[in-house]
This record gives sequence, C-alpha cells and structure tokens, in this order.
Amino acid sequence: MSLSIRNQLPGTVISVTPGEVMATVKVRLGGGQEITAAVTLEAVEDLGLAAGSTVRALVKSTEVSLATGPVDGVSIRNQLPGTVTDVAVGGAMARVKVTVAGGELTSAITKDAATELGLTAGAQVVALIKSTEVSLSNA
Amino acid sequence: MSLSIRNQLPGTVISVTPGEVMATVKVRLGGGQEITAAVTLEAVEDLGLAAGSTVRALVKSTEVSLATGPVDGVSIRNQLPGTVTDVAVGGAMARVKVTVAGGELTSAITKDAATELGLTAGAQVVALIKSTEVSLSNA
Amino acid sequence: MSLSIRNQLPGTVISVTPGEVMATVKVRLGGGQEITAAVTLEAVEDLGLAAGSTVRALVKSTEVSLATGPVDGVSIRNQLPGTVTDVAVGGAMARVKVTVAGGELTSAITKDAATELGLTAGAQVVALIKSTEVSLSNA
Repeated sequence: MSLSIRNQLPGTVISVTPGEVMATVKVRLGGGQEITAAVTLEAVEDLGLAAGSTVRALVKSTEVSLATGPVDGVSIRNQLPGTVTDVAVGGAMARVKVTVAGGELTSAITKDAATELGLTAGAQVVALIKSTEVSLSNA
Repeated sequence: MSLSIRNQLPGTVISVTPGEVMATVKVRLGGGQEITAAVTLEAVEDLGLAAGSTVRALVKSTEVSLATGPVDGVSIRNQLPGTVTDVAVGGAMARVKVTVAGGELTSAITKDAATELGLTAGAQVVALIKSTEVSLSNA
Repeated sequence: MSLSIRNQLPGTVISVTPGEVMATVKVRLGGGQEITAAVTLEAVEDLGLAAGSTVRALVKSTEVSLATGPVDGVSIRNQLPGTVTDVAVGGAMARVKVTVAGGELTSAITKDAATELGLTAGAQVVALIKSTEVSLSNA
C-alpha cells in the first residue's frame, strides 16, 4: 500500500500510556529522536502496540511546522532538528524538504511563512509536530 | 500494514487538480459521497493518482468534527451524514462512532463537545473533515 | 527564533481539565474570545499550565477553516469572528488573512472553498478551529 503521507519514520515503541479513549505512545526513531503520538486507545489495541513494537510514525506534510531553532515552553511534543534541502513555492503554499537524523521530512507551510523564515537549502530548522498529528503503523 | 488511522474509506478518484506544490483530489466513496483531499503534488505523482484510480481516503480520528446537521457556507469540503452508534467518554476527550453510507467513522472530540451536542447512540450527525486532513493510499 | 506557525494568539489560561493522557485547556485571548486547546497531559505538566498562566495559542494555517457566519451545533470549540483582509490564490490552495479581535489569523483552505464562499477583502467570516489543532506556548 502506497500512502500520500510523505513522512514515515521507522522506530520502536518505548512506552504506551493508555487513557479511557486516547493513548499516548512514545517511539524511539531510527535517528535516535523520541516522538510522541496521541492516538485512540482502540488503535493501540488493534495494532497490539507495546514497548518494543516496531512501528512507523506517519505525519502528513501539512502537519509539520518549522522553526528556525529549538522552541522552549511549547505544548508541541515533537521537535526534530534538521537541515533544509529543497524549497518549492506555489501561489499560496510552499513545500519544504528537511533532512533529519535517520531520514527526510516534507513540510507544507504557507508561502508567507517560507519567505519570512528565509527558508532556503542549507537553512537549519526544527520540525515541530503536534502529538495528535502523529499516526502509527505496524512496520 | 496496520494503521492507527481509524478512518479508511474506499473510493475512486474523480479528478485531480494540480497546483504548484499542492493538489486537490476528489474521490467518490463507496457510499456515493464525494470527498476532497488536499495533498502534496509529489504524493499525487508518487501514487500515480488520476481519474479512475482506486484509493482509500485516510483520516485520523482527531481530525473528524461532528455537527448536528449540515453546515452551509463553510470552507470545510467534506460533510458526511451519519448516525452515532457508540460514545466512549474519558476525562478530557470522547470517542464517537458514526455509521455513514458505505462505512463507519471514528471521531475524537472534546468531552465538552460531546456533552453539549447531546451525542448518544441514535443521534443524527454530520461528520466534517477539512481537505488538508485527508490522506490517500492506493487501495 | 521564528516559527512557520502563522497564528499566535496571546491569552491567559482560564481552566485546565485533565484527563488520563489528554487535557483540555481554556484560554481567554487578548481580544476577549475564549479558545479551547486539547493537548497532552504531559505538555500541561511540562509547561506548568494552570488558571492564570500567560500563554500563546498556536494554530497552523492549514488548521483554520472559515465559515460565512457562526455555526451552531458543531463539535468545533473555537469560533472567532473576523473580517477578510487579503486572499492569495494558488493552483490548488488559497491563503486567506482574517482580522479578528486582538489580532490576525491566516487560513490555508482549498481554492475551491475560497471561490465558493466568495472570499474577498471585506467579507465577514468566522474562523473555525478544532481544539486538537491548538498548541500552547508559555508567552
């Protein structure tokens, strides 16, 4: 099955914290980074997720924000530092490719944001991803 | 591959409108409804999407809003009418199951919203999904 | 540090409702509106959020829907009335600027939606934002 979801990061589940309807799942990515996913409890049960499970963290490009440096004091759990490798600009939106440890990310942000942040190949950035935007698949 | 993404609706691509970096893809679902996905142009190319392609529309539960009736004059492209079949409530969030033509949807909304809308089994609702939240897979 | 997240609305936390893994946080914005964020409980603890905390509500442009008037009976918690000031249209997407009480919002919606809603400078709209799409930062 091919997915339109551009960002598929392989990793291993570190922990699962179940709530009544939601669960948070921490995953150690191949590049060593830690990522948190907030998914339904039902999904955790269906996929049989537990510490040690091999998974992929899936993130739609439109859910990846970019910052020009680490962001302190923010609720966004996932921050992956990287380097911009390519920027394509359209009439309203821009598509930015970022190399991170262990892989590559695609981010779709507004053209305005890409311009204001001065994003060009070589720029150092931090990709920000809210936990509720991270899906998981069995690898 | 199992996915944590609860909502996977089979359908057929009706049209693809390419922009410079994004594309909108219209899909006719098995239940007859039309759904629009806004994905990267790159994804459209990689998946070889064109009119007639068989796909699945993928939507994370946290991206499905619910209304008690159709909503006019809104930018949200996707409105799927259905009937609530089950509600599970946690401390902050609620998980609502909705039967729609051709399938079932899972929606994760705040507990407050579920209470205020009086969502219980049998309630008629319309599921609202922003195009930027719809991913596609080859079926 | 600069962020690609276009929407950063200053406010003060009114209440925190913790669940097992998620929490809902109500914030009074500078313009007087109330906004609800659904974030991980861990984020609430890390940021030390409680009634009275000064925060910024962060919302990615792709998460802001627009309606031509208030929407009743919907699970979407956040509705901010405003006036369109600018529209930029690409091949697939449109970027819409909206002035709201106390600030400005940027919304990225499909071109089709912008056309159908007749969005041009001066149009009255209501920005709709699902709670799960609102992140928070310490101000």
